[in-house]
Amino acid sequence: MAAVPPPIRIEDPADPRIAAFVSIKERDLTGRQGRFIAEGTVVLRMLAAAHRSGRGITAEAILLLENRVAGLAELLAQFPADVPVFVADAPVFDAIAGFNMHRGVLALGRSDAMPGRDALIAAVPASSLVLAACGISNHDNMGSLFRNAAAFGVDAVLMDESSCDPMYRKSIRVSVGSALTLPFSREGTAAELIDRLLTAGFAIWGLSPRGEVDVTEIPPAPRTALLVGTEGEGLPQAILSAVRTARIRQRPGLDSLNVAMAAGIALHQVASANGRI
Amino acid sequence: MAAVPPPIRIEDPADPRIAAFVSIKERDLTGRQGRFIAEGTVVLRMLAAAHRSGRGITAEAILLLENRVAGLAELLAQFPADVPVFVADAPVFDAIAGFNMHRGVLALGRSDAMPGRDALIAAVPASSLVLAACGISNHDNMGSLFRNAAAFGVDAVLMDESSCDPMYRKSIRVSVGSALTLPFSREGTAAELIDRLLTAGFAIWGLSPRGEVDVTEIPPAPRTALLVGTEGEGLPQAILSAVRTARIRQRPGLDSLNVAMAAGIALHQVASANGRI
Repeated sequence: MAAVPPPIRIEDPADPRIAAFVSIKERDLTGRQGRFIAEGTVVLRMLAAAHRSGRGITAEAILLLENRVAGLAELLAQFPADVPVFVADAPVFDAIAGFNMHRGVLALGRSDAMPGRDALIAAVPASSLVLAACGISNHDNMGSLFRNAAAFGVDAVLMDESSCDPMYRKSIRVSVGSALTLPFSREGTAAELIDRLLTAGFAIWGLSPRGEVDVTEIPPAPRTALLVGTEGEGLPQAILSAVRTARIRQRPGLDSLNVAMAAGIALHQVASANGRI
Repeated sequence: MAAVPPPIRIEDPADPRIAAFVSIKERDLTGRQGRFIAEGTVVLRMLAAAHRSGRGITAEAILLLENRVAGLAELLAQFPADVPVFVADAPVFDAIAGFNMHRGVLALGRSDAMPGRDALIAAVPASSLVLAACGISNHDNMGSLFRNAAAFGVDAVLMDESSCDPMYRKSIRVSVGSALTLPFSREGTAAELIDRLLTAGFAIWGLSPRGEVDVTEIPPAPRTALLVGTEGEGLPQAILSAVRTARIRQRPGLDSLNVAMAAGIALHQVASANGRI
C-alpha cells in the first residue's frame, strides 16, 4: 500500500486548484473535453479500478468532505500518489459543488484514447455477449443499461452516435461506476454497427414488443448481441428487419417496459442460457 | 361522448382557481391531504381510467398548455363535465408550475377511502400474484416497481409503512400512471404484512443475493407474493428467515441489481411460470 500524502485543505470555494469541481450540476450537460465527475464511494472505487486497468481512464483529482477522509484511507491508497486529494468543510464543499452533496465524495477523471467500435469488436472473446444500443437519450436509462450489462457479464456496450454520453455524472452514478470499467464505444450509425457485428459472427437479437420469438427462446450462441432502441419508439423498422427479434411477455395494453428494464430481463435470460452467469 | 365544456383561460399565475398547481416541484415532498399531481398525456389517460373505476381516485382539475388542448379533446371527454379544464399560454403555465413543463399537461387528483392492506388481501382473486415491498425510500424506484408490477399482471402492491408514497408526482410519472390504477396499500410493519399473506395462503418469496433457490426455480403456486426490500441493504435477516428466498444469477463482486430491476426480472419469471402473461 502506497504512502498516502496528506489531503490538501481548501478554504476558499474560488481556489483555482478545485475549479473543475465548481457548479458541477449546472455544467452537467456541457462539453468537458473528455473529463467526467465521479461521485460517491462506490463510484470512486470503480474509478480506482479503471485507473489501474490502463484502458484510458485516469483519475485527476479527488475532493472530499472533511468527515469522509478517515473512512476512505484504504481506498485513497489505491490511487497513485500524484492524484491530489482536496478536503473541505461542509459550507465550502457545498459552495464549490453548487448543491448539497450529501455523499461528500467527488472525483474528477479523464477519458482519452479509448478504443473505438471496431477495435472493441475485434477484441471481444470468441465467446461473448455484447449490448448494442441505438438512440438512448436519457442519462438515467443509460446508467441503468450499464449497471445491468455489468451485472450480467456483458463484454462490451456498443452504441450508435445518437446515444447520449455514458460519462455524464448522472449516468456514471446510476451505473454504480460500471460506465468507468465496462468497455464501450459510441460512434457511427445503427446500420454500421449491425453490419460490423454480423461480420464478426454475432447473432443479433433486437428487442421489440412485436418480436418474432419470446426472449426465453433465444438460442444459445457463441456470440450474441442484444440490441435495444430508443425510449418510447423502440427500434425503427429498418433496423428490426435487418436482425432477428425477440419480445418480452407482458400484459397487453400498457406502455411497454422501460428500455433498461427490458434489457435487464433479456440479458439475464441470454446470459443464463449461455452459461455466463 | 359527453359534451366538453370550453376550457377556462387563466391569465394570472396567482389566480386562486389554479392555486393547487403553483410551484408543484418545490412542494413535491410535503403533505397534500391525499392530493396528487399527474403529469403528461399517458398519466392523464390513466387518471381518467382510475376516476371511472371508482376505487377512490378522483380527478379534481386539469391544467393544459394552450397548444395541447386540441390534441387532447378525446381524452378530456373521458372526464366528468364537472372537472374543470384550465388553459394557459407558456409564460403563464411556467409561472404557475414553477419550472419549464415541456409536457404542458397537468392534473390535480385526490385519493381517499382507498381500501387498506387487509381489505386488499381479502379481495385478490383465488389465483393471484402480489408484490410486497419494505422500506422503499426512493421515488424513482417506487415508480419503476409499479410500472413493472403492471406490466407483469400483479394484482396488488402491498408496502410496509416505512416505504415512500407512490402518489408523489415523480413516482406517478415513472410508473407511467400505474400508481393510479394498480391497487396498493402502505401500512403496518413488514412482519405484519408477511403474517397476513401467509394466513391468506400466499407462498412468499423474498429476493436476496443469498437466496436459497434461483429465481427461475420458484415453483408455480395459486398465490405467490414476491417480497423486495430496501435499496442498498435489501431485506433484513429477520424477514428473510420468515420466508422462502430466491436469488437472481449475476456476476459476482458487483453491487447488486437495482431493486426495481430485480423485481422486474423476478416478476417476469414468476408471471411466466404461472401462465399469467
